[in-house]
Amino acid sequence: MNLDAFFNPKCIAVIGASRSPEKLGYLILENLKVTFQGKIYPINPNASEILGLACLPSILDIEDIIPDMAIIAVPAAEVKKVLSDCIKKKIKAAVIITSGFSEIGNKEAELELKNMAKGKIRLIGPNCVGIYQKGLDMLFFPRKRLKRPSEGSIAFITQSGAFGSTLLDLVASEGVGVSKFISIGNKIDVNETELLEYLSKDLNTRCIAMYIESIEDGKNFIEVAKRVVKKKPIVVFKAGKTNKGKEAILSHTGSLAGEHAVYSAAFEQAGIIEANTTEELFDFAKALANQPVMNSNKIAIVTNGGGFGIVATDEAVRIGLEVPELSKESIKNLEKFMPAYATKKNPVDLTGDATTERYEKALSVVFKEKEIAGVVCIGLMQIPTLKEDIINVLRECKVYGKPMTICATGGQWTTEKTKILESYGIPVYLMPERAVKSIKALYDYGKILKMK
Amino acid sequence: MNLDAFFNPKCIAVIGASRSPEKLGYLILENLKVTFQGKIYPINPNASEILGLACLPSILDIEDIIPDMAIIAVPAAEVKKVLSDCIKKKIKAAVIITSGFSEIGNKEAELELKNMAKGKIRLIGPNCVGIYQKGLDMLFFPRKRLKRPSEGSIAFITQSGAFGSTLLDLVASEGVGVSKFISIGNKIDVNETELLEYLSKDLNTRCIAMYIESIEDGKNFIEVAKRVVKKKPIVVFKAGKTNKGKEAILSHTGSLAGEHAVYSAAFEQAGIIEANTTEELFDFAKALANQPVMNSNKIAIVTNGGGFGIVATDEAVRIGLEVPELSKESIKNLEKFMPAYATKKNPVDLTGDATTERYEKALSVVFKEKEIAGVVCIGLMQIPTLKEDIINVLRECKVYGKPMTICATGGQWTTEKTKILESYGIPVYLMPERAVKSIKALYDYGKILKMK
Repeated sequence: MNLDAFFNPKCIAVIGASRSPEKLGYLILENLKVTFQGKIYPINPNASEILGLACLPSILDIEDIIPDMAIIAVPAAEVKKVLSDCIKKKIKAAVIITSGFSEIGNKEAELELKNMAKGKIRLIGPNCVGIYQKGLDMLFFPRKRLKRPSEGSIAFITQSGAFGSTLLDLVASEGVGVSKFISIGNKIDVNETELLEYLSKDLNTRCIAMYIESIEDGKNFIEVAKRVVKKKPIVVFKAGKTNKGKEAILSHTGSLAGEHAVYSAAFEQAGIIEANTTEELFDFAKALANQPVMNSNKIAIVTNGGGFGIVATDEAVRIGLEVPELSKESIKNLEKFMPAYATKKNPVDLTGDATTERYEKALSVVFKEKEIAGVVCIGLMQIPTLKEDIINVLRECKVYGKPMTICATGGQWTTEKTKILESYGIPVYLMPERAVKSIKALYDYGKILKMK
Repeated sequence: MNLDAFFNPKCIAVIGASRSPEKLGYLILENLKVTFQGKIYPINPNASEILGLACLPSILDIEDIIPDMAIIAVPAAEVKKVLSDCIKKKIKAAVIITSGFSEIGNKEAELELKNMAKGKIRLIGPNCVGIYQKGLDMLFFPRKRLKRPSEGSIAFITQSGAFGSTLLDLVASEGVGVSKFISIGNKIDVNETELLEYLSKDLNTRCIAMYIESIEDGKNFIEVAKRVVKKKPIVVFKAGKTNKGKEAILSHTGSLAGEHAVYSAAFEQAGIIEANTTEELFDFAKALANQPVMNSNKIAIVTNGGGFGIVATDEAVRIGLEVPELSKESIKNLEKFMPAYATKKNPVDLTGDATTERYEKALSVVFKEKEIAGVVCIGLMQIPTLKEDIINVLRECKVYGKPMTICATGGQWTTEKTKILESYGIPVYLMPERAVKSIKALYDYGKILKMK
């Protein structure tokens, strides 16, 4: 049974739908109702109607139609009964939101669910927040508190529901889009490996980002990942790098984490890009999803703030990128339009009175330089001479076919501009080091694609 | 001559004030006018009035009064003449905004200014953006584009004007306050060492943060810093860590940067906390300015998102902090009110249905545990059960006299809450690693205070 019932359902039952606005069973129904175009059946033996939708006491009471998917949000003790009803009803897929299984030592009950489901129904969870994608929002977070991102090209698989959801909120605030979000929790059936395979065929997904605490079928995972990375990049943050962290995992998703060095080596072998921090996970994903790969380690840095150029240069060298001298011809071309006091070397410092035109010409020179494989562009939007048309200039840089990352530090004025850039697939970072590390991820992925 | 004329002027002349709203000489005057309560004299030989203020052709035409400070924003070629007028007028202090000196190889002209000024007038700059503090805003960035932070306790010395200013904007957007901001540029007179000394006596300043490209009087700097850190923490980001970066510095502020290892060793010897990234500079500063030091490396982590607790634990261990077992008594106390499925170990996982009350009780237990020297509290604000009174609970934690840093990941809903926390002096970070590294800075400063 494939996973289509999870991602393209026409009819969904919410088992454990609640009338109380603070309960998960209410929030799930509420968010589903405002996003899902198909038929929704709230299931609750004690209510006749919730949120204007007719309620049924049991999923077995649904007539005429078999829901494609059930979302289960009943107390842990009732999950078994409810799941057995789902199987009776021949429902193909269920997302079990309910927690209280192996993560608190309750392994037996979890195993029971697993065995019951085998060959009969596909399961996501338990102990998860489920799926979010355009037209299908089952997250139990109020939309006022947790903003949903627009449709985009990053798919996100997470073992931690809270980590994944709050990152969605952060992503949304930056104007970055997401294709699919899947919280897998204790993953007694559908796991990261199967999702990798599925997402590799998803046309909307151009990068797969993962927050992982443990991988049980390591060999299979690596095999699948090796195939998938030929089609699209995978970036992984692995939690549980220390013994203390691994102990904490045991009480979070009930998983055994294993040695981090083994994971790191496996990721490398599979061609997976490892994010060392949670910040890098998102930073790298938005570059990998939207920018072409970088074919060498040689970058140009263009800036309207000298200090930023220096910091970016330091970081580039530190992580193994080169900031090479420009050719004599390029320097001559820069001299044609840059004022005497501006720096025509790499990093190119357009200085604090840089105009959009100066950026346009300088970017053209460095992008056209054969040796330069990518550009880190620092564009401080507060500079009085910089007009909003800088956004168009940066957008047009895609004609050069080389990757670019942007650094723009600041508050609201800046954020308004960078949100537009992000909507065009141009990744923007608050700090220069992050812009440099993210273009390095594009170089790393380029190397992975060249591997046999 | 001390620096009071820069920071407590009663009368300021703006030499090179302009009528054209895009010119620096206009923007400086505009921002000064809306903030400075004293008398302002715009100086421009071709205008009779700018922004409603009467203009004079030369500073020598000012009658009756001697301005305490001049802000110079004329073209580089005119600075010498204008400075000589300032000296004639017996003005005590001048900030030279104008660039085009040693940073473009024009060392001679810079040296001339330096020699002229010696013993007669104190100088900040050239090639800088000057000073920002409550009641004195000479930044040439439009306030619409670059928001100013509220009054706070971080003083910021920066050799890069753009880096400093855009960071101010970022700081403002997070609701963090600043006591004084000084952009020192090519620092031909007033430098970081003298400012350290000055700021050590500034009652509003509780932490000094610095962005530095070079230090010329290393020995003196270390000597002064050694004294200052006994009173308040200093955190430094040093640019120019690589040869390529040092080359770039030469064309930015005309300085010779020297070996980074030498700087690092000197910072350590002086008891200065070094920020390895620009992000850390601001992250550490807001913790150091507002939280007590941490007396051991033993922290507790309290979270409502299991994954975050694991990531924080990993990071703590990685950087040399301990996440020790809690005492039997503490565990018993946690068991009294925490549900069965929540984790009563360190990291303490209150789980995704944590209420404010659960936080309040758990924080009380871990803060009161003798062995615990500080707490990293992860408070995901999107969780439906968490009410806004969590802000008060976190605020009240100061009664325990131990440091706390917060991690809250998310968008607008979260930011609205974290801004309030920041206004109470509680540092909040988007990612768990940053909250952990920042509490480590409080441990490091604690060790520095214990040094003889």
